[in-house]
Amino acid sequence: MTAPISSTTLPFEEHAQGQTPLASWNEGAAKESIMNFVRGVTTIGDAHFVRPEERIAVFDNDGTLWSEQPMPFQFAFVIDRLKEIAPQHPEWKDKQPMAAVLAGDMKTAAAGGMRALLELAKVTHAGMTTEEFSKIVKDWIAIARHPKLNRPYTDLIFQPMLELLVYLRSSGFRTFIVSGGGVEFMRVWVEKVYGIPPEQVIGSSIVTKFEMLAGVPVLTRLPELDFIDDNVGKPVAINKHIGRRPIAAFGNSDGDLQMLQWTTAGMASRFGLLVNHTDSVREFAYQASTLGKLDEALKEAEAKGWTVVDMKRDWNRIYPFEADE
Amino acid sequence: MTAPISSTTLPFEEHAQGQTPLASWNEGAAKESIMNFVRGVTTIGDAHFVRPEERIAVFDNDGTLWSEQPMPFQFAFVIDRLKEIAPQHPEWKDKQPMAAVLAGDMKTAAAGGMRALLELAKVTHAGMTTEEFSKIVKDWIAIARHPKLNRPYTDLIFQPMLELLVYLRSSGFRTFIVSGGGVEFMRVWVEKVYGIPPEQVIGSSIVTKFEMLAGVPVLTRLPELDFIDDNVGKPVAINKHIGRRPIAAFGNSDGDLQMLQWTTAGMASRFGLLVNHTDSVREFAYQASTLGKLDEALKEAEAKGWTVVDMKRDWNRIYPFEADE
Repeated sequence: MTAPISSTTLPFEEHAQGQTPLASWNEGAAKESIMNFVRGVTTIGDAHFVRPEERIAVFDNDGTLWSEQPMPFQFAFVIDRLKEIAPQHPEWKDKQPMAAVLAGDMKTAAAGGMRALLELAKVTHAGMTTEEFSKIVKDWIAIARHPKLNRPYTDLIFQPMLELLVYLRSSGFRTFIVSGGGVEFMRVWVEKVYGIPPEQVIGSSIVTKFEMLAGVPVLTRLPELDFIDDNVGKPVAINKHIGRRPIAAFGNSDGDLQMLQWTTAGMASRFGLLVNHTDSVREFAYQASTLGKLDEALKEAEAKGWTVVDMKRDWNRIYPFEADE
Repeated sequence: MTAPISSTTLPFEEHAQGQTPLASWNEGAAKESIMNFVRGVTTIGDAHFVRPEERIAVFDNDGTLWSEQPMPFQFAFVIDRLKEIAPQHPEWKDKQPMAAVLAGDMKTAAAGGMRALLELAKVTHAGMTTEEFSKIVKDWIAIARHPKLNRPYTDLIFQPMLELLVYLRSSGFRTFIVSGGGVEFMRVWVEKVYGIPPEQVIGSSIVTKFEMLAGVPVLTRLPELDFIDDNVGKPVAINKHIGRRPIAAFGNSDGDLQMLQWTTAGMASRFGLLVNHTDSVREFAYQASTLGKLDEALKEAEAKGWTVVDMKRDWNRIYPFEADE
């Protein structure tokens, strides 16, 4: 196959189906632990058997299903969107953190911490209807390119994780995303890219308001935070949206710790897995960086027996497009 | 069959499957409108065909899937629970609205309006883990009896609506509950009674907090309102949880108006239906009462062409247990 594969035009199935399960996973403890778990919960009569309706698997997104360096991709959207609408906001010239971002001074912007980030999210993600926002994201994801790899962001998904999603679903699991990313940002493209439908996407959100505009009911996005789906927020959101405890959880950072704790503390067979970003050549090595930090969760993984994937050692392929190269 | 049927022991299927679709619906405009809609969206090549993944139907619960007189059944739970824990709260003797409810003075309690209701919800629904609360509801629903009909509340579900749920699901729909009732109150019993799994139940909620208790992760229910899933809240919750617009919505009161507006304003084929409680003999007639008021939505139904079910005229059977009588 010589034609370039683009995940923005090909459904996820073409990357992952019709192959040996987990073909991009090297033989070893990580792959074995997954297959043993799935064998146990799907085998009638096995002590670990779990009814299909309880086979729920939850996945973090940034750093677990796709890359998140040099910054979470939704933040690239924030910057692009900010630049696009800046002409309508001359007042941003003197207002932080907008002024810093527009001047390309990310250090000053980042110094504002979570508060600055929320302010940026509000001015770029609110003030339109839900349908208008979906259109904005759809248009952006089609043309935006990763600054280093010069590819659509939706190409930068992990082939081994796509195979894992397909393997779990073919074993009677339902796969959910539980991400700190914006729920309406993700829903636009995740169905095509991961095969995960909108109703199985849980994320951070801002407040929406039902109103009538010229006789038509709309949901307007307000510049007001609704929920941050990270850390302790993840089990809270899982309980609110799914209403049952998952039996498997997949993450990559300390922000996923509570999700793994909650999932694996349930009765019956449970599975927890962390992706450790160890491959500075094929992807990025950054487990010690502030963003996507993997420290406390890694220690707990050892104590609790969660699987830790060493990307460099355990994955023989990172991205779908590598097959062409 | 002479043995009494109890919906607390029999799964919903035994009430509704293996029959002619909508057998408890009399021939007429209401039944015909449902069958025409389903025929259109499920027939490949029909102008109204809708892909299975978009076939989402949303149902109000109180007054739509089960009765809600003389008061919403969750309020009976609140009263019973209040009485049960009152000995641990001597201070309630002088504190409204608890004092009034404990004295059986519902008039005084009701005078406190929504604020009093929320206070009662907080003191009875918070202060325990999610698992403890589920157990409390499970124990209550097993023994509580309707004051007039002397039956488990889960017997007081509408046979024609059970048949409708089964008919839609057998036509490739997924059925969701979108109710003003508490989401954790409903999830305990709705799967068994309606065949609707926890992840397809949307409702009102209080805040939960993730914490470690003796090394075990729990979600603790706090006396703080999270979301009221009624009126304008319904389309907001549908968007947040499902992330796509339903193609059919079923309600019975003005609290369902915005859900029907939002659903039927979408592109393609859409269906809206209101249950009008007109049968004072077999159920209750109360469309003009404060609670479950059906006024504005009824007017809009006429203007928009939504189906209005006249319970007395359109349903030949109300409750599943009537088959025995």
